[in-house]
Amino acid sequence: MLQTVQWAADACRLLDQTKLPTETTYLDVADEHAMWDAIRRLVVRGAPAIGVAAAFGVYLGVRGFTGDLLEFYDRLNTVCDYLATSRPTAVNLFWAIDRQRRTARDAGRDLPAGAADDHAVAVIKARLLATAKHMLDEDTAACRKLGAHGLDLLTPLADPADGVIRLLTHCNAGGLATVQYGTALAPVYVGVERGHRFHVYADETRPLLQGSRITAFELKANGVDTTVICDNMAATVMAQKKVAGVIVGTDRVAANGDVANKIGTLGVAVLARHYGIPFYVAAPTSSIDMSLATGDQIPIEERPAVEVTHGLGKQTAPDGVGVFNPAFDVTPAELVTAIITERGVVRPPYGEGLRRVVG
Amino acid sequence: MLQTVQWAADACRLLDQTKLPTETTYLDVADEHAMWDAIRRLVVRGAPAIGVAAAFGVYLGVRGFTGDLLEFYDRLNTVCDYLATSRPTAVNLFWAIDRQRRTARDAGRDLPAGAADDHAVAVIKARLLATAKHMLDEDTAACRKLGAHGLDLLTPLADPADGVIRLLTHCNAGGLATVQYGTALAPVYVGVERGHRFHVYADETRPLLQGSRITAFELKANGVDTTVICDNMAATVMAQKKVAGVIVGTDRVAANGDVANKIGTLGVAVLARHYGIPFYVAAPTSSIDMSLATGDQIPIEERPAVEVTHGLGKQTAPDGVGVFNPAFDVTPAELVTAIITERGVVRPPYGEGLRRVVG
Repeated sequence: MLQTVQWAADACRLLDQTKLPTETTYLDVADEHAMWDAIRRLVVRGAPAIGVAAAFGVYLGVRGFTGDLLEFYDRLNTVCDYLATSRPTAVNLFWAIDRQRRTARDAGRDLPAGAADDHAVAVIKARLLATAKHMLDEDTAACRKLGAHGLDLLTPLADPADGVIRLLTHCNAGGLATVQYGTALAPVYVGVERGHRFHVYADETRPLLQGSRITAFELKANGVDTTVICDNMAATVMAQKKVAGVIVGTDRVAANGDVANKIGTLGVAVLARHYGIPFYVAAPTSSIDMSLATGDQIPIEERPAVEVTHGLGKQTAPDGVGVFNPAFDVTPAELVTAIITERGVVRPPYGEGLRRVVG
Repeated sequence: MLQTVQWAADACRLLDQTKLPTETTYLDVADEHAMWDAIRRLVVRGAPAIGVAAAFGVYLGVRGFTGDLLEFYDRLNTVCDYLATSRPTAVNLFWAIDRQRRTARDAGRDLPAGAADDHAVAVIKARLLATAKHMLDEDTAACRKLGAHGLDLLTPLADPADGVIRLLTHCNAGGLATVQYGTALAPVYVGVERGHRFHVYADETRPLLQGSRITAFELKANGVDTTVICDNMAATVMAQKKVAGVIVGTDRVAANGDVANKIGTLGVAVLARHYGIPFYVAAPTSSIDMSLATGDQIPIEERPAVEVTHGLGKQTAPDGVGVFNPAFDVTPAELVTAIITERGVVRPPYGEGLRRVVG
């Protein structure tokens, strides 16, 4: 199974996502500068995966250090501050770096009084590496749990004729945004491990095509039967009963169950309702924001027109034409059949159920 | 107003659609070889426009002829057979060429007995040119009539706050597929002439992007306020009440009112129903096929995967992945608010109303 972040003997090995979908290559990152660059250039992407990569980056930035304990902490802070500048918005990046600062502090406190500085530094370094590895395992475990809960919802959708579970997904909420397994695709990967068969229709997801470039790539690489469609073909796929359900990820869930996700998700939800098929949202509890009463309060980023007019390097719309390019949309809770978290499945009414899994 | 086909002193002037949306250039076509090439290379496209261009092509192929009447008819047939090979499927091409053959035959019959051959040839040539010009005017007149009927439906959608009629359209059923005015966009152009104001959201229409490349181009060139969106943004546009109605063209309407049109139309129709806005179809009576009871009988072309995987000049999906690429979909009559023809507006139940306008 594809893994975006690994520890490989003495380097952090990243799947180079800038080369997808045409090349599968790995980049061994051996110091904090290379990690900063890898995060910045989107070699590694997806908030959970970035967090884990940054945690390794902190370790890589101090592992060659020699000197006394005070200087070590100075060095650690410099590395942490530096890595935090690699990308501006991924919350998991800052969370992961702060967790490593705490790891170092706690490790220092745990040392017996009078420990030699070189011993102390070695112990803290080891703890930083262990924590990064632990975060890697944690992410994988959370995705697997979410996957198992989701699988319980998907198995009843298997085609009675051939046992295949046919699904549609939008954008990428797959293993390549996490360490592995992903969120929306976790039930598929866990299901494959347990012997279920799937066929996934992947919306290409204009304008940036994460569906065809990333989702289709990882499903195919992991041996799942995959069909790419343009976003506007989803209605026909449903009308022709080619899929029995929809599963997508989310960027943020409001307290009432409204779901913000990649632009186009709302349209898929409306279609699923029209054609009477379930619409499932995979949401790690870290994506549930109980501070927002409804989806109306979720800020929606509008992105540059050039993403629409010059798709992938070629001009496809007249000069100076108006463009509307919202990056996300909000699907109202009433169109969501269930929300799948690593702590279980939440069904309507969502207010109560979401409070339970988060609290 | 942009015109795809014109007669310019001694040549047929075509808007070169292969250069859109980045260049507006015209090509003067002076003989049948250049016309064959222009039709083949999609300099002129859209069934009605191709028909009119071919009619001029027939005239251009014989206008330099000198010789006797029998040789003239031989020459005419050779030109007609040759032009008919320019594209394989556009029905209007064959219809227009046959109409010119009849024009020549009828003109020959109308000549007084004993007319000199050189006089006869000159008369027939003049009649061929007149017929081509007449077909050009006919096409424009039919589109204008359809536009006027459609405008009656659209004016009640004007925003009470500012009087602007805000619409969404999919693919291109505009002036560039006809001589001018088009079908779905005809009500907009006729409305502009009458002082109405419009704002049109144009779905880009993957995979071939006729919406952003052609519809947005012609709307903008004709001074209509236009916003390009990716197909998957239509739901958000409707949810945010940015449009009050949808208008699209059609490739074929079945006797029960089921409508085949460019892939993605069905999804837009489902969304329009969900958000409670009217979904109008502009259909010249020549597109209504009373021989098909329902849309299930309309054959749907599936096109090459490469249009999806390499759509924008760059590979955007992994090698060898499955692709589903239907070029059209069928919107069931129950989702269609009204069908607009050049002979008036048809409302449900469609069976009876369509028989009336066709019969």
